[in-house]
Amino acid sequence: MNKNALPIGVFDSGLGGLTAFAELKRIMPGENIIYFGDNARIPYGTKSPALIKKYALQDTRFLTSVGVKAILVACGTVSSNCLPDVGAESGLPVTGVIKSPASIAAKIAAKGKGTVAVLGTTATVRSGAFQRELETLGVKNVIARACPMFVPLAESWHPSADDAAANAIAREYLSDVALKQPDAVILGCTHYPLLSDVIKKFFPGSALISSGRESAYEMRDVIVSLGLENRGGGEYGFYTSDDADLFKRSAAAFLGDEITGEVKKIDIEKF
Amino acid sequence: MNKNALPIGVFDSGLGGLTAFAELKRIMPGENIIYFGDNARIPYGTKSPALIKKYALQDTRFLTSVGVKAILVACGTVSSNCLPDVGAESGLPVTGVIKSPASIAAKIAAKGKGTVAVLGTTATVRSGAFQRELETLGVKNVIARACPMFVPLAESWHPSADDAAANAIAREYLSDVALKQPDAVILGCTHYPLLSDVIKKFFPGSALISSGRESAYEMRDVIVSLGLENRGGGEYGFYTSDDADLFKRSAAAFLGDEITGEVKKIDIEKF
Repeated sequence: MNKNALPIGVFDSGLGGLTAFAELKRIMPGENIIYFGDNARIPYGTKSPALIKKYALQDTRFLTSVGVKAILVACGTVSSNCLPDVGAESGLPVTGVIKSPASIAAKIAAKGKGTVAVLGTTATVRSGAFQRELETLGVKNVIARACPMFVPLAESWHPSADDAAANAIAREYLSDVALKQPDAVILGCTHYPLLSDVIKKFFPGSALISSGRESAYEMRDVIVSLGLENRGGGEYGFYTSDDADLFKRSAAAFLGDEITGEVKKIDIEKF
Repeated sequence: MNKNALPIGVFDSGLGGLTAFAELKRIMPGENIIYFGDNARIPYGTKSPALIKKYALQDTRFLTSVGVKAILVACGTVSSNCLPDVGAESGLPVTGVIKSPASIAAKIAAKGKGTVAVLGTTATVRSGAFQRELETLGVKNVIARACPMFVPLAESWHPSADDAAANAIAREYLSDVALKQPDAVILGCTHYPLLSDVIKKFFPGSALISSGRESAYEMRDVIVSLGLENRGGGEYGFYTSDDADLFKRSAAAFLGDEITGEVKKIDIEKF
């Protein structure tokens, strides 16, 4: 089989990574893509580094068992805790959700006050991966804030900008970060764009950067630079470790559109 | 080995079931008890019935592999979705967190207006188990409300009675239930007692019933009726599917006291 025709594999702890999938599909319409959401074990961001690595390697082995030419880790927690392990396990080109958004944030900060805020899961912030990347890129002031309630909030309902509960939770996490008026705010978890109407209110003068959406561009660069582009593809497959119908319904709510392609349930513990 | 000296096994998706463990320890000081928290896969209450059953059977097989004389399912989601499966898999006496709290709530309602509210996870409320039990006991008006944000809220921080975010979330779920002024409110998830200061404000005239705490009494009745009591035990062991130190620290915060006994990490996917 022509290697270029192999799909790009995308995985996340659940549905958040669909923000990366959607952008990848949009900017690389000739690619085949398969998506795996580990809905059986979501969330990852509150769990230990050792367990996150175990889950990431199982997710990787599932994708390589199906056959992919590259892997986009569309999960901030995995990207920041064990991205090199995904590369080593798969032997494939692997990109995460850190480099592209950090690069854009650094460019914005260079023209502003030099301040970037990173919002992420507990495990993402604890890893320090975004912070290191931004400091390497010369950002002077990096503020990282763990927002553990944001994933269940995004999954429970899609709060409007004036939702009382969502605003109260956001205030808990963001009030003091907002006082710093960062030039850019990285949504370092791929679920957070669902809360952007609420988050935006705390940062009226800041650029909000979706790590999931931006991550598609790094994958495109890698695919192009390795000569792995495909034409005439556009086939999509979805896999979940929990109920397939539930995935389909939730994905539609998440993307604001029906997903096209079959959804299959797999037992991730076997990988 | 004398069967009576075998421990009682208690399991939950995480730490919530420690409310049952603590009460069991208090009222049956002669018993040995082992506790398993499936912290690697928490939460259960947002997942599908098939997956909840799979996890419950793995948890059961782990406890029987260690050797227990009875199992207390200290998880509202498992108790309401697949308690008979735990009994069939283990061949042991099994109790959950539904019968005892429903019985007490029914007695209170019989002397009042006849209204009981049940707060639980999405999967617990969807199963209808509490509702059926209460109706069988003659309760005229049963209101069941899913509160999916309460578990992450209880795990993220222990909100005080005036915590803004906790109150906003509680208002979202409880405002219209509060208008019914139920005689009793069952905290149908073993995590919810950590939020009782907040929940209580919505139900000033209602009895708040902790399903975890009450569940210990049903287990005591079963142990006594089967002649399985032990004397002179009082040894406790703890197992978790994620990090042992993390479990120990979190358990202390949860119970307001250090847990006594070793904590061991196990790989629940092997069971």
